[in-house]
Amino acid sequence: MTLDAEVDALRRVPLFRGIDATKLRLLAFISDRTRFAAGERLCNQGEEGDSAFIILEGSADIRVDTPDGEKTVARVGRHSIVGEIAILCDVPRTASVVAAEELDVLTVSKDDFLRLLKEFPDMSLEVMRTLAQRLERTTQDLAALKASGEAA
Amino acid sequence: MTLDAEVDALRRVPLFRGIDATKLRLLAFISDRTRFAAGERLCNQGEEGDSAFIILEGSADIRVDTPDGEKTVARVGRHSIVGEIAILCDVPRTASVVAAEELDVLTVSKDDFLRLLKEFPDMSLEVMRTLAQRLERTTQDLAALKASGEAA
Repeated sequence: MTLDAEVDALRRVPLFRGIDATKLRLLAFISDRTRFAAGERLCNQGEEGDSAFIILEGSADIRVDTPDGEKTVARVGRHSIVGEIAILCDVPRTASVVAAEELDVLTVSKDDFLRLLKEFPDMSLEVMRTLAQRLERTTQDLAALKASGEAA
Repeated sequence: MTLDAEVDALRRVPLFRGIDATKLRLLAFISDRTRFAAGERLCNQGEEGDSAFIILEGSADIRVDTPDGEKTVARVGRHSIVGEIAILCDVPRTASVVAAEELDVLTVSKDDFLRLLKEFPDMSLEVMRTLAQRLERTTQDLAALKASGEAA
């Protein structure tokens, strides 16, 4: 894919909406774009996290280790960001990410990602919104499961 | 409490670490500081959310409506921020917040909060970290409950 086509793909990601074309070009240039087959793992829980992933095409499962093996807790799709928790909180990967189908992914290094957030308040707000939405969904799931567990 | 004492209290909140004294003074001046008794409600799920709360002293329960009534899904303590999801995502309150003991709370309006986030990248990062940590804890709880449910 040419750099122009790549910049065009990035421009369609809501997360990058507030970033001007020159910076987007730089981002396309410094980031890795990778294709994953269904079932391939982008990262594993417990590993050190040195990058965030932005899904350009496809969807992935968020999987968490439990005493009874790995459980899928969420699915994320096109234009989602994943893997940012380890970067933000400076902790090992809190979940594994597994391609649910063929995936086209932009990998942004920790340093570049933090720099972007500092420089572009709109991108920060978008990351906050994403985290807040995921927290809300997970909290609802937890409450529903608690209620059904107590009812059973 | 004098404005100086108030600024001093705000200075100890990690969320405001990167904010200089003059701005902190302004924040103390424009924000409401309220005391809640144990059991009092800061906000109710489903209401419009026009402010965020920063807990200066005490702790509060995050409670979510389920078909079997209200369930506590998390407890937050001193220096935590709550109620920011409705502001960030422009949705009604996604949970109720109830004082677990006597609470001392700083109420920041939506407009002031968003302005602070835009102006202070360090505060944005801290909010992101808080959201990420809460998401991680909730995801772990959900995975554990899913595993125990399947084992039962």
